[in-house]
Amino acid sequence: MVEVQVQKRELVTSLGNVVRIIPSRASNPGLGLLKTEITDKSIVLSGSNMEIDIEATVPADVTGTGSFCLSGHVFSQVIGSLPGDMVTLKLGDKEVVVSSGNFDTTLRLEDSESAPVISFSEKLVGKVEAPELAKALSSVRYAAATADYQAIFRGVKIEFKEQEMRTVSTDGFRLAYYNSDYSTGLKGDVVAPARSIDEVVRLLAEGTVRFDLSDSRLSIQAKPYRINVNLMDGSFPDYEKVIPKSFPVSISVDAGLLTEAVSRVALMADKNANNRVDLFIKGGILQITAEGSYGRSQEAIDVLQTGNDQEIALAYNAKYLTDALSPISGDLQISFSGTSTPSVMASSEDPSYLAMVVPLRTG
Amino acid sequence: MVEVQVQKRELVTSLGNVVRIIPSRASNPGLGLLKTEITDKSIVLSGSNMEIDIEATVPADVTGTGSFCLSGHVFSQVIGSLPGDMVTLKLGDKEVVVSSGNFDTTLRLEDSESAPVISFSEKLVGKVEAPELAKALSSVRYAAATADYQAIFRGVKIEFKEQEMRTVSTDGFRLAYYNSDYSTGLKGDVVAPARSIDEVVRLLAEGTVRFDLSDSRLSIQAKPYRINVNLMDGSFPDYEKVIPKSFPVSISVDAGLLTEAVSRVALMADKNANNRVDLFIKGGILQITAEGSYGRSQEAIDVLQTGNDQEIALAYNAKYLTDALSPISGDLQISFSGTSTPSVMASSEDPSYLAMVVPLRTG
Repeated sequence: MVEVQVQKRELVTSLGNVVRIIPSRASNPGLGLLKTEITDKSIVLSGSNMEIDIEATVPADVTGTGSFCLSGHVFSQVIGSLPGDMVTLKLGDKEVVVSSGNFDTTLRLEDSESAPVISFSEKLVGKVEAPELAKALSSVRYAAATADYQAIFRGVKIEFKEQEMRTVSTDGFRLAYYNSDYSTGLKGDVVAPARSIDEVVRLLAEGTVRFDLSDSRLSIQAKPYRINVNLMDGSFPDYEKVIPKSFPVSISVDAGLLTEAVSRVALMADKNANNRVDLFIKGGILQITAEGSYGRSQEAIDVLQTGNDQEIALAYNAKYLTDALSPISGDLQISFSGTSTPSVMASSEDPSYLAMVVPLRTG
Repeated sequence: MVEVQVQKRELVTSLGNVVRIIPSRASNPGLGLLKTEITDKSIVLSGSNMEIDIEATVPADVTGTGSFCLSGHVFSQVIGSLPGDMVTLKLGDKEVVVSSGNFDTTLRLEDSESAPVISFSEKLVGKVEAPELAKALSSVRYAAATADYQAIFRGVKIEFKEQEMRTVSTDGFRLAYYNSDYSTGLKGDVVAPARSIDEVVRLLAEGTVRFDLSDSRLSIQAKPYRINVNLMDGSFPDYEKVIPKSFPVSISVDAGLLTEAVSRVALMADKNANNRVDLFIKGGILQITAEGSYGRSQEAIDVLQTGNDQEIALAYNAKYLTDALSPISGDLQISFSGTSTPSVMASSEDPSYLAMVVPLRTG
């Protein structure tokens, strides 16, 4: 007789985080299954979508050990609806009885052989603080391409170096990188699907993350979670050579102020013509304009101009501009290499993050 | 030269409430237009989707009078994005200039002849308090049918009688009515589309609503809004004769407790088999069960049984049951006319609301 007592609140959180990645309608119904292991002092939940595997451990009062498989989404809904603070699970051969308060439900078990096989590395050589990893990944993720592009552009590259970890994304029209002065203990470059990176970021909270690299996957332990991220094949573009080194003109301005002004002006921009906004800089004033079928908008902002004092006119996709600014708060510097060559954005205080955006062709 | 100064916050709220009903993509582009009249002391916004017209009046500082037409959704987005607390509009022949802070936008005007013609009744004989009307409409609206049914079932009927206003909805399998002891001053029965009723309820807040009936429409004035609801043709079913009058057995139970239990148990119900839950009443205990492909659930609740003390077994569509309970808080009475004939639900304290649900055929 296997019986488990577990706190509803903890089980709901962990189930939510595992079941989120489980496909609710898959061509292979086995992919919809959640595996639950009842061990000495805990319940261990695991699921996969073939790109990422997630396992969560929930402390529990256990009598006996065992394991079972059932629809992840159904189990999660049932647990979430329970009336009491504590949940009791009683495991039989073909069913598990979930009870709480005056309510009980008997759930049919599925064959565990249909479920995805999930295993985790025991050897975890690398380490990094969870908030640092979260910041490094979430700062660059926006620059990865969406489904329209070549596969490798839909990934986030992580470069593990001797004294540094760098994350990079690019879709060919823009690029973002983030440098951590952090010796993780790992060496090598990997590219992970941006969608899997989103899931990893969601699970990172506090404490030290342990991780490791193999040929095909990145293993992460961020307690109470273990994660496998399947890596992408293909060669990531040699991005460093396209980042300009010389900038005749730069401006400084508050990132929030500029983001709001660009978003507001861009309402008039033509979505079918690259969502174009024009920037015109002269005598310490940045004029932002857009024009489309509904009308034209403009806004003027005071900026600090450095380098030479020439007038500059450029155009950008408004979304690319506001995305590039999103990880920056406070004073920001935009450096212009020319009117048709890439511009570079960075925080004036924190050099970790760099964004590059290619201007639109004008005229 | 026509110029207007208006508070952004008030303009945003009113624009939002008018533009909500304006189709964003209509086969007739004129339907997407918002008409704006600049009068002595206010801006008057109006729009229509052919089922309902809404007009909102916003106080403003005005120089000159005039009117203009433009895309409602674009205007609403632009106003919502403005940086300052005050908005200035300057009306020209072919464009209106919107400015706020350092930002301005010039919006092209559209031909007002393409916009829907909207007019409001000046004569408003009836009256009712806004919260009472909101409660009467929102309590029964759920029982109206969705698109799958005959048109008239998708309406809410309002019966204006000498000393009473009654609202009714039914889809043939369930019914809800709400009686207001309220002498509105109107007489007659009308049926309004449930979707339009949703918009009316959204605009009702405090104060006295004035309204009137004509052959084809219900006119409502709920300041600062004026509304026309186009009425439905067709004969509403003679619903009173299907409401049972005699009930061998009733139970009393807390509405919230029962709703939660039914929702929880219904997670196991088969969505393709009417979302069936079974109720079994015996000796003061109500047992709720459901069974489907994932398993079976049950929950027991103490109830107060009145009438004869026989055991009863019935089945319902769980959604119909929880919908019927939703307007009731506190103690609730369910009266059973039989196991295959309609059951009636009502609050034990407030007799205004009555819901009827036809049980599912069992066995």
